[in-house]
Amino acid sequence: MFAEAEADPTLSREAFKKEETRLRTALVKSQYAQLQAGERALLIVIAGIDGAGKGATVNLLNEWMDPRHILTQGFGAPDELERQYPPLWRYWNALPAKGRTAIVFGSWYAPLLFEGARKRPDTDRLDALAASIRRFEDQLSANGVQILKLWFHLSPEAQKTRSKRLLASPETAWQVLPEDLLVQKHFDRLRESGHHAISRTDRPHAPWVVIPSADDNMRAVSAARAVLHALRRGAVRVPAPSPTPADAGARRSGRRDVLGKLDYRGSIDKDDYEDRLGVLQGRLARALRDPAFRQRALVLAFEGQDAAGKGGAIRRVTQALDARRYEITPVSAPSPHELLRPYLWRFWRRVPRQGRVAIFDRSWYGRVLVERVEELTPAAAWKRAYGEINDFESQLVGHGAIVLKFWLAISREEQLKRFREREKSPYKTFKITQDDWRNRRKWPAYLGAANEMIARTDTLAAPWRIVATDDKRLARLQVLEHIVERVEKALGRE
Amino acid sequence: MFAEAEADPTLSREAFKKEETRLRTALVKSQYAQLQAGERALLIVIAGIDGAGKGATVNLLNEWMDPRHILTQGFGAPDELERQYPPLWRYWNALPAKGRTAIVFGSWYAPLLFEGARKRPDTDRLDALAASIRRFEDQLSANGVQILKLWFHLSPEAQKTRSKRLLASPETAWQVLPEDLLVQKHFDRLRESGHHAISRTDRPHAPWVVIPSADDNMRAVSAARAVLHALRRGAVRVPAPSPTPADAGARRSGRRDVLGKLDYRGSIDKDDYEDRLGVLQGRLARALRDPAFRQRALVLAFEGQDAAGKGGAIRRVTQALDARRYEITPVSAPSPHELLRPYLWRFWRRVPRQGRVAIFDRSWYGRVLVERVEELTPAAAWKRAYGEINDFESQLVGHGAIVLKFWLAISREEQLKRFREREKSPYKTFKITQDDWRNRRKWPAYLGAANEMIARTDTLAAPWRIVATDDKRLARLQVLEHIVERVEKALGRE
Repeated sequence: MFAEAEADPTLSREAFKKEETRLRTALVKSQYAQLQAGERALLIVIAGIDGAGKGATVNLLNEWMDPRHILTQGFGAPDELERQYPPLWRYWNALPAKGRTAIVFGSWYAPLLFEGARKRPDTDRLDALAASIRRFEDQLSANGVQILKLWFHLSPEAQKTRSKRLLASPETAWQVLPEDLLVQKHFDRLRESGHHAISRTDRPHAPWVVIPSADDNMRAVSAARAVLHALRRGAVRVPAPSPTPADAGARRSGRRDVLGKLDYRGSIDKDDYEDRLGVLQGRLARALRDPAFRQRALVLAFEGQDAAGKGGAIRRVTQALDARRYEITPVSAPSPHELLRPYLWRFWRRVPRQGRVAIFDRSWYGRVLVERVEELTPAAAWKRAYGEINDFESQLVGHGAIVLKFWLAISREEQLKRFREREKSPYKTFKITQDDWRNRRKWPAYLGAANEMIARTDTLAAPWRIVATDDKRLARLQVLEHIVERVEKALGRE
Repeated sequence: MFAEAEADPTLSREAFKKEETRLRTALVKSQYAQLQAGERALLIVIAGIDGAGKGATVNLLNEWMDPRHILTQGFGAPDELERQYPPLWRYWNALPAKGRTAIVFGSWYAPLLFEGARKRPDTDRLDALAASIRRFEDQLSANGVQILKLWFHLSPEAQKTRSKRLLASPETAWQVLPEDLLVQKHFDRLRESGHHAISRTDRPHAPWVVIPSADDNMRAVSAARAVLHALRRGAVRVPAPSPTPADAGARRSGRRDVLGKLDYRGSIDKDDYEDRLGVLQGRLARALRDPAFRQRALVLAFEGQDAAGKGGAIRRVTQALDARRYEITPVSAPSPHELLRPYLWRFWRRVPRQGRVAIFDRSWYGRVLVERVEELTPAAAWKRAYGEINDFESQLVGHGAIVLKFWLAISREEQLKRFREREKSPYKTFKITQDDWRNRRKWPAYLGAANEMIARTDTLAAPWRIVATDDKRLARLQVLEHIVERVEKALGRE
């Protein structure tokens, strides 16, 4: 894999000059074609041996292409803010819009490369890290982000020579960083770790290219050629992802019609309701003030038919919350700006930090509900979404979040009653539109989609709670009770 | 001011019920009218005595209006992330889009109210805080964000009674917070502080309304009426702002034609250039690695005529920077989503955290350059922008940022030469468009705008550096040298 690069090939100045003109012209042309098509983004991952000239190459790419359409970002060890989110959060935030290019230093490969370079790597951890990277890259590739990964490599001797040459002159000495000088000592382990990472994550839709880096001309031309090739080639089909550990956790895959058998009876009287509501709100408020919650987070997703009472249920929850600690995100059709990124991007942006609560009034499940039923998205995309969603939620849970999902189910008769009430009320008519009546006519299609959604995404880590809401008060208590019990259990307050 | 509220007026259940229907209907209607017009946002500030039922009222507004178009946000003491930005940064981030409503708890009034409630308030600090609030609210009001401020008030006896009543029952006891119980001890000081804050910041375009809060019905109806009144009334003219302290710092207001007298001669040979470039880059790299920089930030704004070499100069700077610590923002026409907020909103979102570098390739000065010359914005807006910009930059500097602004000036002959070169080069043609030729024909208008811009915004805190760029290499060295000197000086490294 590295033999060619470690032979330290060179390129003459004349050959370089000739290639430069050709490559720059082609790069700019391809970049503009990509921008105009607006169908794919290009994400370039920069990795390799320290002191191989990675930084210089990134600067060169910014000079050879139009830098106004390139987003260059570097990541170090996660800082105190980044540690409050799941590890991939910062990379989701950095995704380029369709048509654009992003260059990423210090990427999601850092933990894998670091573990692989240890004296005795933990192979279970290596497997888990590589699998998580593959899932992440699969999801991006399938969602319009093309991935190219460059590994800058050279022989240990050339690395040493390069650092020495730079150190010899005050104009360049500052370019040599302490980590560059450590490379010599551990070269074999770094090479081994790179080899392992590349062989585990090199796939046709997210390929690695090794860049021979001992010679500046050769390095520049090789990197530019790889980028040009990526810009020019068409989309590569991403194979259907294998089930994730989170998918395997789906508990009730046998139960395909859980919503069909729901019991909508049951009610509670008003005084009883008021008392129990206050008590549950008090328990929730106190649980979230528990210092143990500062290391956790709470994610609540509300789905359900129109008029099932999502808004009312959410208000009963927020009454118990500290206004400085929660955020409600009402979810509707994605904006043009959101359509330029992978589907889950806009939800990643609203993930809560540690100690906070994020409430979604409708959620990322829109893709397998309204987008599926109304045929707003191709079948391949919503079918893929179950796995992507399970992976998303398992990352939140893996980072300490409590993720609870509610399906508020209303009977068809009760919905009709509420629609009519809304039409009559002077201050509720805004809640009822032609869309609601249209959706109602598609009741079986929506119910079928919801049934399949629940079957496929009711995981142990992030379970669904189905609540019949024909009696609004009872439903609100059940929602609150479920939250309280789950939160108290997670914080060890039982 | 508070006499009426401290009389603790009440509203009967019957009167409330009647008002409720009327108010809810009117509120929803007005909210939708505002949404449809899309001309103004409404920002509701919530303040007042703790334990007066502020939280309950905000919940009620969310119930009475369509909560999907209301953004409710609470702010506590700034957390470790927020402290890395200027104090107003988090409020800028929370601004509602035109057509929408935002409710803010724990707002920019907290420091003023806190200072005012001390035993011996520092009157200079009170003056400065009130002035800064007025400038902030003026800017929002003038930029399409209507402001309404509600002060929840009641007599000390009623506050005590309310807390006691809530504490008496397990269903409501959790609603009483520790700070509510402290109110009694300091009631006079809190009232005095509120009185002072209101009298200093109550203006027709950003009014305060005192809400009598002892009685739940009265409080709800009073707050809803105030919101309804705000939604219904037309825009209030914002008076021209008085000069800010930052404006007063503009050093060269006498020099109205600084660009006309520029000397474009001078050059440097290539070897000399390479040596000096390396040395300057090394000094910059080392300065930014200085631990002292972790408490500072660096903001670089590049403006200048087309082909004056902004991109090339920026690249020579970024070569010296750690990729994990800087971000380049290329600025072009605002997106539809950005047009929904006050002009400076999109720049506030790219302000650097402590320890970081933000580079702007074109900047917030677009308003007084291209938007002025091309008549993309009303004259009142760009005339107002000088003061808004000075205030913006002085907030960055006040929080420790080093703010440097460059005007890269090219002679008209040299620009023509570079335009023609670009047209001929196979990989530079993308840099030259019809717009560039059109702008060139408006040379005097752009030059006039730039002259006035420099005269009005060349402040001591954030000075302009004018660099003649007919010799690109010399210009790049001058840019780097200026940055190095300013940064070294700011960090005490000279």
